[in-house]
Amino acid sequence: MPHLKIEYTDNIEAQADMGTLCRGLAQVLGSLKDEQGLPLFPLGGTRVLAYPAPHHAVADGGDHAFVYLNLRIAIGRSDAMKTIAGDALLERAKAHFSSLFSERTLGITLQIDEGVQVYDGKHSNLHTLFSK
Amino acid sequence: MPHLKIEYTDNIEAQADMGTLCRGLAQVLGSLKDEQGLPLFPLGGTRVLAYPAPHHAVADGGDHAFVYLNLRIAIGRSDAMKTIAGDALLERAKAHFSSLFSERTLGITLQIDEGVQVYDGKHSNLHTLFSK
Amino acid sequence: MPHLKIEYTDNIEAQADMGTLCRGLAQVLGSLKDEQGLPLFPLGGTRVLAYPAPHHAVADGGDHAFVYLNLRIAIGRSDAMKTIAGDALLERAKAHFSSLFSERTLGITLQIDEGVQVYDGKHSNLHTLFSK
Repeated sequence: MPHLKIEYTDNIEAQADMGTLCRGLAQVLGSLKDEQGLPLFPLGGTRVLAYPAPHHAVADGGDHAFVYLNLRIAIGRSDAMKTIAGDALLERAKAHFSSLFSERTLGITLQIDEGVQVYDGKHSNLHTLFSK
Repeated sequence: MPHLKIEYTDNIEAQADMGTLCRGLAQVLGSLKDEQGLPLFPLGGTRVLAYPAPHHAVADGGDHAFVYLNLRIAIGRSDAMKTIAGDALLERAKAHFSSLFSERTLGITLQIDEGVQVYDGKHSNLHTLFSK
Repeated sequence: MPHLKIEYTDNIEAQADMGTLCRGLAQVLGSLKDEQGLPLFPLGGTRVLAYPAPHHAVADGGDHAFVYLNLRIAIGRSDAMKTIAGDALLERAKAHFSSLFSERTLGITLQIDEGVQVYDGKHSNLHTLFSK
């Protein structure tokens, strides 16, 4: 972790440029520092996945758009750090969609889930690659 | 919120009519009232997204179908209200799939997750549109 | 339940053989026994769904792959049993991807979520079919 999953209505697929947003949000996650100035999250554990939903209904079911960002993190960061991380990701998402937001109905929600799991297993050649 | 996500095996894509189900479930969410007769959930915050899974195995891995509905809500409703909401959504889903259910193996599960997140940020022009 | 959801970067779609992995993991879930030698999970409630993500960024955003497996279970198993279940699923996933793992950057993470939901409703003709 951190794992960031983006779920969105596919009626903005053509304008959303989701690949760029995924890379931008991974950069934000990698750039955050904790109270000691160390990386808040491990770069080698950073994953961002985005899924357009082919079927959806938003609010009254009209032609509205929605982007949901869910960040899943391990237990251990301070509340202040969680707020900083959430705000930084939401700001990047808002900036990414600012022009689309001015043109159409659109909701963006970002939530963080912390320490939900009761088992956590890994097998990776990515962590060592980025812990040099 | 409320956020309702539907995940289902893609072997029922042709018969599932998921767009209709999404709109119907959004209507159910919008029609629910709390103990004071006020809307149980904000219409401007209602989102329903449905995702067919291209790969799946159900039970013994035979040609079975599965529809999973997960409703994510904020903390604050009574247990009775959560039951009413869950039952109403499940009833609508059962009615929607009644003919398919009589024809093939199919499992429908609806669960509600409440107040899991530790950060909740929003940017939307939908809430104001529907709070008039 | 158990519900196992697999989310993965679509840059391994051609080599991942996800249908085989789904069936293999469903078999693992169905073969696990509890302390009394009884099935740890109900076969009729076993579901495995896998979703390739069309947009993604892993670690530094390079051409890396990621497979996330999330198992959702009901409350009630011992910690030892949860570890056995998690280890067995992760071992199967590692074996499935062993050749791919030796060829490219790849991260595999398996997590178990237990008893998150506050409402749990079902409508199924699968449980009876497999409880004979």
